[in-house]
Parts: sequence; C-alpha cells; structure tokens
Amino acid sequence: MIILGIDPGLRTTGFGVIQKVGNKLRYIASGTIKSGEGDLPERLKVILDGVAQVAATYKPDCAAIEKVFVNVNPQSTLLLGQARGAAICALVTHELKVAEYSPTQLKQAVVGTGRATKAQVQDMVARLLALPGLPGSDAADALGIAICHAHSQATLSVVTNVHPALSGLRMKRGRLVG
Amino acid sequence: MIILGIDPGLRTTGFGVIQKVGNKLRYIASGTIKSGEGDLPERLKVILDGVAQVAATYKPDCAAIEKVFVNVNPQSTLLLGQARGAAICALVTHELKVAEYSPTQLKQAVVGTGRATKAQVQDMVARLLALPGLPGSDAADALGIAICHAHSQATLSVVTNVHPALSGLRMKRGRLVG
Repeated sequence: MIILGIDPGLRTTGFGVIQKVGNKLRYIASGTIKSGEGDLPERLKVILDGVAQVAATYKPDCAAIEKVFVNVNPQSTLLLGQARGAAICALVTHELKVAEYSPTQLKQAVVGTGRATKAQVQDMVARLLALPGLPGSDAADALGIAICHAHSQATLSVVTNVHPALSGLRMKRGRLVG
Repeated sequence: MIILGIDPGLRTTGFGVIQKVGNKLRYIASGTIKSGEGDLPERLKVILDGVAQVAATYKPDCAAIEKVFVNVNPQSTLLLGQARGAAICALVTHELKVAEYSPTQLKQAVVGTGRATKAQVQDMVARLLALPGLPGSDAADALGIAICHAHSQATLSVVTNVHPALSGLRMKRGRLVG
C-alpha cells in the first residue's frame, strides 16, 4: 500500500510518499510545492497541479492530510483553508480516499507525545524511515502524516489480528518506534 | 463575453451566468450546488465537480468569485476557506481568469450602497437582468458578482472609451442602474 501524506500551506505544501509492505514502512519520496508570488487563484492552481502531479507520479492507494491549526489571524485562517481545499481537490480528483489527522495525532503517532517539537518530528521520521539525513520541516510533517495513517491502519490490524508483529518497527504504547 | 459568478459556501455554492453583449447584460443561467452530508473531502469534490460542470456547460470567458466574510467562528472560517478553494480550483482548471470582489463591492455595484440587504440585492439583480421573478439568495449573490465584474469591465471601458453608452442600463455615480 502506497500512502501519500500532505502538510497543506498556502506558501509551502509538503508531501511525503511511503510504502507499507506487510508491516514495514519504506520511504519513497518527499518534497515541497511552493505556490510562488501570483494572485490567490494562481497560487491555488500551483498547489492543485503540484499535488496532482505527485499523485500521478507515485500512484498512491490512499492519502492523508494534516488538519490545520486555526490561526489567531482570521485572514490567515481563510487563506490556509483555501490552500488546504486545493490540495484536497487534487486528491479527490485522483479518486483517493482522504484521511485527516490533527498535528497532535501526528506527533503522538511519530514521537509518542502530542507536544513534540518540529525537530523531534523530523528526527523520528528520519529514524522510522531509515533516512540518511533529516527531511525538511514541511516534508517531515507530510511523511509524519503518512506514517500516522499507516499506523492507524496498523492499529486497526491489531484489533483484527491480535498482534501486528511489526518487523523492523516495534509498537510501544500504541505507537511505532524505530 | 460570458461571465460566471460564484458565491462560495461549504453547504451551498451559488452560481450565476450572464452574457455581456456590447453594453447589455443578458441572463443565461443560475442555481446552487449543494455539497450534501458527506465528509469534508467528499463535499469539496461535490463543489469542485459542480462548478466544473457549470463551466463546461456554459463555457464562460471569465469568472468572478465573492470574497468571503471572515466568520467569528474560526472553524467556520476554515471550512468556508476550503469550500472557496475548491470552487476556485474548478475555475482555474478550466483556464478561467478569476476576479475577486467583496460583498461590499457587489452591493455597491448592484444596489448602489455597500450596506444593502440581501433582499435589495435580489430585487436589483432581478431588475438589471429583467428576470420574471426573484432569484434565490445564493444565486442572486452569484449573479450580482457576475454583474459586478461586468460593471468593473464597463468602468474600465469608461477610462479607455470616454463614455460607455450603456444601452438598457444606465450608469449613475459609477454604478449601473436599471
């Protein structure tokens, strides 16, 4: 199963693609989509086309996107909402089922605490996917969302299969550890 | 020139299509897209597909969308933003240039005061487009946005052509009157 994770943003949208083979997670790709300096419709088109291109290239079986923080500035919240809407549109256009996870769920799944720092997320994502170096912050969040979704699927399999018997990854207190 | 106006909303997205022939405005179509009761990605897909279908059916030359109010409830603002993002995605996918107007600009263009009521907008839209009855509130706003865009184009032609010589519509203090 190939999972596409998205960390939406108006300026920078992070994406991360991982593969779940049995109970192993394998890194496939990650990166960012920069929306540039155009007017809002142009920038939304960059996000739409960018996410669509990632989906067309890596042909994921499912997708997951981060629930965004409501900003203190309502205008920023509105802009972020539109960017997230564009990313979701690209996913549903590719007939992908889209799961949503909060930043707290992401951190809980990847680091083990909902109050983890960005650096901790980057570090754990690199460890869980055996990356040679740290991913950028946006890409790390996107990979983290994909891991969170894989984990959520694994948790479901615990319920049905009694024991996940994760090979390469271990599960500790309901989360995956390297 | 065929203009598509959009009044975005998560639950109901209004659309209005008008044609500008010389300086006359002609009603073509209007209606609403209801996003239904699915989860957020499903609802955004309904909006995306609905607006895309309107664009494919009426083949507008340009589009205009209402700038939305920032809601007192940040979560509502975020949802509205995502719905608006989906509508804009459908427009830019059809290679349409998308103009944006605030509710105040809409009311100013259609009724002549930025503090007009919804009922006044409906009434003036019906008069300006010689409709046999009042359009619904969402469709009226969408038609109003299209009129606002046509008007904005007319204003530009005032600058270049000295006098718009609107036939059927008159311009008074920078706005169209029936």
